[in-house]
Amino acid sequence: MQELRQGIVLTEAVEMAAQPVSVLITGANRGLGLEMVRQMLEAPCPVRKLFACCRDPDGPRAEALQTLAKKNPNISVVRLDATDLCSIKLCAQQVGSLVGTGGLNLLINNAGIAPKGTVQETSPEDMQHCFNTNVMGPMNIIKEFLPHLRDAVKASGMPGMSINKAAVVSISSLLGSMEALHSYAFFPAASYRISKAGLNMLTVCAAEELKKDEILFCVLHPGWVRTDMGGEEADIDPPESVQGMLSVMASLTEKQNGAFLDYKGQSIPW
Amino acid sequence: MQELRQGIVLTEAVEMAAQPVSVLITGANRGLGLEMVRQMLEAPCPVRKLFACCRDPDGPRAEALQTLAKKNPNISVVRLDATDLCSIKLCAQQVGSLVGTGGLNLLINNAGIAPKGTVQETSPEDMQHCFNTNVMGPMNIIKEFLPHLRDAVKASGMPGMSINKAAVVSISSLLGSMEALHSYAFFPAASYRISKAGLNMLTVCAAEELKKDEILFCVLHPGWVRTDMGGEEADIDPPESVQGMLSVMASLTEKQNGAFLDYKGQSIPW
Ligand SMILES: NC(=O)c1ccc[n+]([C@@H]2O[C@H](COP(=O)([O-])OP(=O)(O)OC[C@H]3O[C@@H](n4cnc5c(N)ncnc54)[C@H](OP(=O)(O)O)[C@@H]3O)[C@@H](O)[C@H]2O)c1
Ligand SMILES: NC(=O)c1ccc[n+]([C@@H]2O[C@H](COP(=O)([O-])OP(=O)(O)OC[C@H]3O[C@@H](n4cnc5c(N)ncnc54)[C@H](OP(=O)(O)O)[C@@H]3O)[C@@H](O)[C@H]2O)c1
Repeated sequence: MQELRQGIVLTEAVEMAAQPVSVLITGANRGLGLEMVRQMLEAPCPVRKLFACCRDPDGPRAEALQTLAKKNPNISVVRLDATDLCSIKLCAQQVGSLVGTGGLNLLINNAGIAPKGTVQETSPEDMQHCFNTNVMGPMNIIKEFLPHLRDAVKASGMPGMSINKAAVVSISSLLGSMEALHSYAFFPAASYRISKAGLNMLTVCAAEELKKDEILFCVLHPGWVRTDMGGEEADIDPPESVQGMLSVMASLTEKQNGAFLDYKGQSIPW
Repeated sequence: MQELRQGIVLTEAVEMAAQPVSVLITGANRGLGLEMVRQMLEAPCPVRKLFACCRDPDGPRAEALQTLAKKNPNISVVRLDATDLCSIKLCAQQVGSLVGTGGLNLLINNAGIAPKGTVQETSPEDMQHCFNTNVMGPMNIIKEFLPHLRDAVKASGMPGMSINKAAVVSISSLLGSMEALHSYAFFPAASYRISKAGLNMLTVCAAEELKKDEILFCVLHPGWVRTDMGGEEADIDPPESVQGMLSVMASLTEKQNGAFLDYKGQSIPW
């Protein structure tokens, strides 16, 4: 009986540990971000503090997210524009006061834009805007949320690395792989590819720099997914992509620190 | 006799073809850029039209280059600031009028900056400035000089790709390789690494996009070199690095289009 009770307690402890308590997702109002919010709440053990960030929480593009939030007290919708450092700082402050000393376990840099166009077609302004959103945004977000990630490490007391302790997962793309250039004629998005290669390098730098702090960093490719960005001809629907990514995230350990994986867990060459 | 004469003519033709007629180098006033200018003029068949670009041709940092230019009519010192689109456009205009329908054979994106600092230490302004100089600069330069590179393709009439026909060689760095991250603790230049990964991606995109136009693109790592940037503890001196790079450049064919090579010709993983 004692053994059985211990078994149950242990299983509960493992289940508790098997998910992050607090998660922040950028670009959570539509596409993959919104689907992540949905699945994290429908899970057997739903995430308890889910910060669903978007740049215009009161605008029409956030209606679906707000509807979800009204039904679920675990969701906090917070304003965050990846190109606006001030909004990132304010968001970090707000989240900090809500998570307290428990900190933030998992930060998902999902917000992104994908301008089309070849090198020749890309204007300096397009390139700049894409870099600001897809690289400077995640960089500033990582920096501003580091104190909360560090708090989560302190609070966890667990050894090793995992998303249940402290992690930053950034949604990159196969198009950010130099090896995957055979697809260029098909999707010649020069500024997007340059920005995702930059995001990949940011991630490996942060992984190397912060491994001593036991904060895990990695980049994921979600597959080619039917969202506004992916278009209707894409390969898979958001539920399949997100289900895959969440299970990959759950499996991450220090071995995957600095890795580039797809939604099936396959490693992608740089 | 006829055979001998044909032999001589052929050898001459091969020698003529074995070097680019016109070359442009950015950041040519010191470091690797200045050493490239020197060696291209000391070669058995010196480059005939050498555009040595720098951002302040009349300033104290261009004195060594100006002294060289006074002694050598093949050099044109032209103003080009990689962060100033207007100066790039003006330079392209000037060069265009000097090369005429022969076009520009070889464009070397050498100018660059290397801010130090970890992810945590890098300010948004530092990151922005580094991206502007090391990625936006080469991108704008490539775009503005494309017409002259295309003219060189037309004028050459040769099959295949080479620096004697039309090529863009960009000086990247091993630090732009995600695989080379073991050196991060030693040289944690986050913004520099992100920018060089971006430059690498720009290069593979351009290589893919412009291969039908027969313009060759590649990135070179010069080694760790004793310049202002490399510092005194670096491995090699500029003459060794540049000798290596020039011989690698001379050997480039369509097989190396989109490649990442070091100054010894070894391929570097992304
Ligand atoms: N779909 C694919 O096939 C695919 C493939 C590879 C990688 N990805 C990556 O997956 C991530 C999500 O893509 P998705 O398919 O879900 O795209 P999506 O449907 O276009 O959604 C993009 C999301 O990013 C947000 N966003 C854009 N700029 C922002 C900014 N400055 N600040 C805050 N939020 C911003 C958007 O908010 P608004 O509603 O306010 O615009 C939206 O929530 C992106 O990083 C993308 O690069 C997608
Ligand atoms: N040295 C190494 O160990 C090493 C290793 C790997 C890669 N590299 C790369 O090799 C290239 C040359 O480096 P280096 O060692 O010769 O560096 P350096 O001695 O610091 O010289 C840099 C050159 O770039 C120019 N420059 C900087 N910003 C510019 C701008 N906005 N517009 C135009 N010119 C600009 C500088 O001009 P000013 O005099 O006006 O500042 C100078 O001529 C760089 O791309 C660097 O990243 C060097």
